[in-house]
Amino acid sequence: MNFGSDTTAPAHPLVLEALARVNSGAEPSYGDDSGAVRVRALLARTFETDDFDFWLVASGTAANALALSCFCPPHASILCHHEAHIQMDERGAPEFFTGGGRLHLLPGEGAKIDFKAFKDYLDYFDPQFVHATPPAAVSLTNLTECGMSYTPDEIARFAQRARAASLAVHLDGARLGNALVRTGASPAEMTWKAGVDVLSLGLTKTGAMGCEIIVLFGKARERFQELRIRAKRAGHMPAKMRYLSAQAEAMLDGGIWLELAAHANRKAGELAVVFADRGLELAWPVEGNEVFVFLPEYDENILKEDGARFYAWPGGSSRFVCSWATTDADIAALRAALSQLKRR
Amino acid sequence: MNFGSDTTAPAHPLVLEALARVNSGAEPSYGDDSGAVRVRALLARTFETDDFDFWLVASGTAANALALSCFCPPHASILCHHEAHIQMDERGAPEFFTGGGRLHLLPGEGAKIDFKAFKDYLDYFDPQFVHATPPAAVSLTNLTECGMSYTPDEIARFAQRARAASLAVHLDGARLGNALVRTGASPAEMTWKAGVDVLSLGLTKTGAMGCEIIVLFGKARERFQELRIRAKRAGHMPAKMRYLSAQAEAMLDGGIWLELAAHANRKAGELAVVFADRGLELAWPVEGNEVFVFLPEYDENILKEDGARFYAWPGGSSRFVCSWATTDADIAALRAALSQLKRR
Amino acid sequence: MNFGSDTTAPAHPLVLEALARVNSGAEPSYGDDSGAVRVRALLARTFETDDFDFWLVASGTAANALALSCFCPPHASILCHHEAHIQMDERGAPEFFTGGGRLHLLPGEGAKIDFKAFKDYLDYFDPQFVHATPPAAVSLTNLTECGMSYTPDEIARFAQRARAASLAVHLDGARLGNALVRTGASPAEMTWKAGVDVLSLGLTKTGAMGCEIIVLFGKARERFQELRIRAKRAGHMPAKMRYLSAQAEAMLDGGIWLELAAHANRKAGELAVVFADRGLELAWPVEGNEVFVFLPEYDENILKEDGARFYAWPGGSSRFVCSWATTDADIAALRAALSQLKRR
Amino acid sequence: MNFGSDTTAPAHPLVLEALARVNSGAEPSYGDDSGAVRVRALLARTFETDDFDFWLVASGTAANALALSCFCPPHASILCHHEAHIQMDERGAPEFFTGGGRLHLLPGEGAKIDFKAFKDYLDYFDPQFVHATPPAAVSLTNLTECGMSYTPDEIARFAQRARAASLAVHLDGARLGNALVRTGASPAEMTWKAGVDVLSLGLTKTGAMGCEIIVLFGKARERFQELRIRAKRAGHMPAKMRYLSAQAEAMLDGGIWLELAAHANRKAGELAVVFADRGLELAWPVEGNEVFVFLPEYDENILKEDGARFYAWPGGSSRFVCSWATTDADIAALRAALSQLKRR
Repeated sequence: MNFGSDTTAPAHPLVLEALARVNSGAEPSYGDDSGAVRVRALLARTFETDDFDFWLVASGTAANALALSCFCPPHASILCHHEAHIQMDERGAPEFFTGGGRLHLLPGEGAKIDFKAFKDYLDYFDPQFVHATPPAAVSLTNLTECGMSYTPDEIARFAQRARAASLAVHLDGARLGNALVRTGASPAEMTWKAGVDVLSLGLTKTGAMGCEIIVLFGKARERFQELRIRAKRAGHMPAKMRYLSAQAEAMLDGGIWLELAAHANRKAGELAVVFADRGLELAWPVEGNEVFVFLPEYDENILKEDGARFYAWPGGSSRFVCSWATTDADIAALRAALSQLKRR
Repeated sequence: MNFGSDTTAPAHPLVLEALARVNSGAEPSYGDDSGAVRVRALLARTFETDDFDFWLVASGTAANALALSCFCPPHASILCHHEAHIQMDERGAPEFFTGGGRLHLLPGEGAKIDFKAFKDYLDYFDPQFVHATPPAAVSLTNLTECGMSYTPDEIARFAQRARAASLAVHLDGARLGNALVRTGASPAEMTWKAGVDVLSLGLTKTGAMGCEIIVLFGKARERFQELRIRAKRAGHMPAKMRYLSAQAEAMLDGGIWLELAAHANRKAGELAVVFADRGLELAWPVEGNEVFVFLPEYDENILKEDGARFYAWPGGSSRFVCSWATTDADIAALRAALSQLKRR
Repeated sequence: MNFGSDTTAPAHPLVLEALARVNSGAEPSYGDDSGAVRVRALLARTFETDDFDFWLVASGTAANALALSCFCPPHASILCHHEAHIQMDERGAPEFFTGGGRLHLLPGEGAKIDFKAFKDYLDYFDPQFVHATPPAAVSLTNLTECGMSYTPDEIARFAQRARAASLAVHLDGARLGNALVRTGASPAEMTWKAGVDVLSLGLTKTGAMGCEIIVLFGKARERFQELRIRAKRAGHMPAKMRYLSAQAEAMLDGGIWLELAAHANRKAGELAVVFADRGLELAWPVEGNEVFVFLPEYDENILKEDGARFYAWPGGSSRFVCSWATTDADIAALRAALSQLKRR
Repeated sequence: MNFGSDTTAPAHPLVLEALARVNSGAEPSYGDDSGAVRVRALLARTFETDDFDFWLVASGTAANALALSCFCPPHASILCHHEAHIQMDERGAPEFFTGGGRLHLLPGEGAKIDFKAFKDYLDYFDPQFVHATPPAAVSLTNLTECGMSYTPDEIARFAQRARAASLAVHLDGARLGNALVRTGASPAEMTWKAGVDVLSLGLTKTGAMGCEIIVLFGKARERFQELRIRAKRAGHMPAKMRYLSAQAEAMLDGGIWLELAAHANRKAGELAVVFADRGLELAWPVEGNEVFVFLPEYDENILKEDGARFYAWPGGSSRFVCSWATTDADIAALRAALSQLKRR
């Protein structure tokens, strides 16, 4: 009954099998392993293009910060939602990797950037004014920190306005699989076809051990050598990269990552029903694998004593996250625990 | 017959077994996993002390740069050998993590810092002179980049002088196991007992998949919270840290890491005999798992066509590295390949 | 009729005289000039204490960024108003000098930080949460960017809460003289007596050529050596510092700076009357040497063609700034120009 | 009898006159002053070209670090002599401004880079090797830290090899006037005609109050907007820049700076004669306004008690520096003081 985070789940067994499969013989280090070739082929199939470069890293913070640092110089800023993960939960990694770049925060419901606020800011900003810090990139998160999803059309709208202002478009896809399943969009539609330049493709929350993929699309590939340099410099070019490749391969092959995301989404849907049956209000619509519910009338502590794991969220709701490992029994146990609670 | 680097070797099977063992159920993320407790206990036994803190990272560059960044402010320098890994092969990671700190390079045979040069520099330097960049730390590497080892007494001599100048003492132990086996010193003798404040304990080259341990000893523990902050900020606090813990556990338990290092050292010794039998000169004495040999009279290309992997090294020698996975057959194959070569 | 900024005014003649006075003979460089001793004595008299250290710099951006960088590590943040000069007009200097620190923006009327928003943020923030970027300092601006002034009591209220959360208190006093004249507070009351740790004392806008003083009070003096180091490293320890000392001396001696600020405030008051006589609304009360007026019904272009200089300000008002050099004729000319304008 | 440094000299009276001349009326701030236009015209005449951009700063450290930061990314290095000012005396300013770039030190007599060492390094270095830190710029100093001068041909030789390796060429001209006078080269010949991309033109030591000019030549002008941004961000875009312009104007107009440099060089020549007459050995030939002499047989303390100011220099010599303000009486006084000293 652990709904604390999809990061508390183990890796999917296929990932461990993949590790074992590559665990023999010598392999070139630092990204030149034969597995990297297979990952490339799988990414090409997944994104329906060959016009990309990629790099594997072991954490989402590394993926986001490295990706952004290739597009935001020290004297510029990255536009993002004021609740974005890069703002709230990465201890200033973007500032560190960019060498002093800035996050410029924008408002919006459900942690989706309000398009008008975005547009107004770009309309207002004079990039020639040397005293102020101009935007160089925009970072969208899909799923958002409130579990909501952008559609490809919404992404494209931001990307179009961004491009007109010479901004790079970054997509933090720590839970991209969940957003794809929800919207029915293909990976290509949600990314380069919508105008995304650089993607942080998260596989860890989806089911890997620790594997995220930075993908540069189209013209953004010009930054690939810089990306490798920055990865090396930041300690994100580990010697035995075959084990990162193996994780990526296991997740992408046959679209396993989307199956796992679909499972997590389904469980979140079931959780929403559990809450609805108790008459509890959700803070945001469930558009992925996260459920934000107001538990004001119940005793959260008793729920936790019963073994439920979840987090209080800014705004007064409680966050419940499902993963590939969430079972029917987990849902049933929460239903049972809730049913025994008395209203305060 | 791959002697390119110990980084091309796979992980030891015990490591994979350990991963599988922890791969079920929910575990707290970001370093709070139950495995971390077991790693702590194993480190305490290994280093015969409880007066330490530690952090697990996935690459040696991360270990060194994070460790050093806690002890060298942006406006100071780190003394190291001019061939040190942090200088030659980490793409400016120390500069990046310290926010603009400097490496001050010192000479010495076999990539061991010349003690007199070290002492003279400290004697000469006026730390009050605001215009110059003063040393804040010294970084020793054991094994050195030339495969040589410092004894605990040698380390202690540096540490003592360093302490008098308020310098922190860092030990880059990417191949510490090899140095311990060679010198017969205990982990405690080679580190905190000799005055080491902060250690990069490498397990990847020894046999892990990707696992290094930063260990803070004694008074240096004051920097532990800063270390965690810097790790998080640099993307080195991955979500599912149980898999780093599992690797560390597998390697430390029962002293497996030292057994694997001993094997690699033995194979290097055998390799040295192979070279000696052909009358080839070594660039440096073999004091670990690396052999630097001059192959001037032979055709290196033919050797490589025969399948031998090794690297040309600055100074004209060729580097051959053995690992836990080096077999008798590898040694024999090299002997055979060499025996068929003609002198140029 | 130049009301564009107090930065467009020349230096006061006393400043030029002071430069000439020190312009003979040899003087020690880099801050060891004999003038520095006289400046220290004048600062002691001005602030009624000896418990301070100081450093002279040639720009306000340098003063703010250097001051803040001594109190905010790279992995922390500085609380400030969302219209603060350090946020709007210094091209990321705080981020640069801190090595990647962050500005955390707070709301408030007239560019004064809303105390409740400040308090709520500190109440909410958990400094132990390693993933988020904690505040290390608060920066108040007096006069604010909207020309309003904090009283010593208001400053003290912020400082008290800041201290409880271990935050350093910085005062950006680019126009401190104007605030002092307005509130009737003494320099001591507005700074260290109110709990200010570090002050950027601006003299340039007040009448110097280019001279700002960073003052560290009380316990903050521990950072003085670091401040000097950072100044040197940033190119703010020029060789012939006697000329910075001379400017400071000229301005502080006999309280000239306050006289000049009083003149500028008076002229701003007269300007406000001019606007009121035309029935124009002010955006903010005039509490210093700046007037923000709504000119919606007049043709700004014609006013500018008549030779008036002023700036459009965010929010729709126009900013008029008076300085020590503003004359009765300037005020009269603006009155005349306005009177000839027709309403749109 | 102050030979400590040319930085201890006052400003030339013409500089003060220039300041007074611009000290009336309103002037646009931040570099848009009318004086900047006049400086541009004077630089065009001085360097016989219009193909340049420039920025004025108040310290030599700022000039060098800003200049270099536009040409060396954080993950690259700057080649310089191991005694260069940027290495020895700027407290890591290049590392700070570049965001973690590195100085790679080269040997050479008299603080002139040994060309062969430079060439060998470039020949050896593989810029594609992602693990190592590649050179992005070379910084030459003229006069060197040992008072020696490069000829235009020597500069050109470095520049040619540098260009082949895509390195930018920086000239630290803190004492450029002295080198020009010595070599008889024109400013154009010593800079852009020889292949210099970016120049730190020092006027402070020559006779200004505090004024250095960063000049970008030819293709390097592409970095001008970045230079302005970096200047702003570093606090080197002071409000009332008219006073920097005035200094530059005073020094460049009529070639005053070269006259003052010629005077200083002449006095250094006379000083060398004084030493020669006493049979004292010079460490380096006198090729500018600095004299490095071995005083081993004399009592330096007595010389200092007599009022002579000079500095001990690495390598055992004593440095005596002449300036525009050095008088016949200074030379005579030193001769007298020396003549009364007894050999030890």
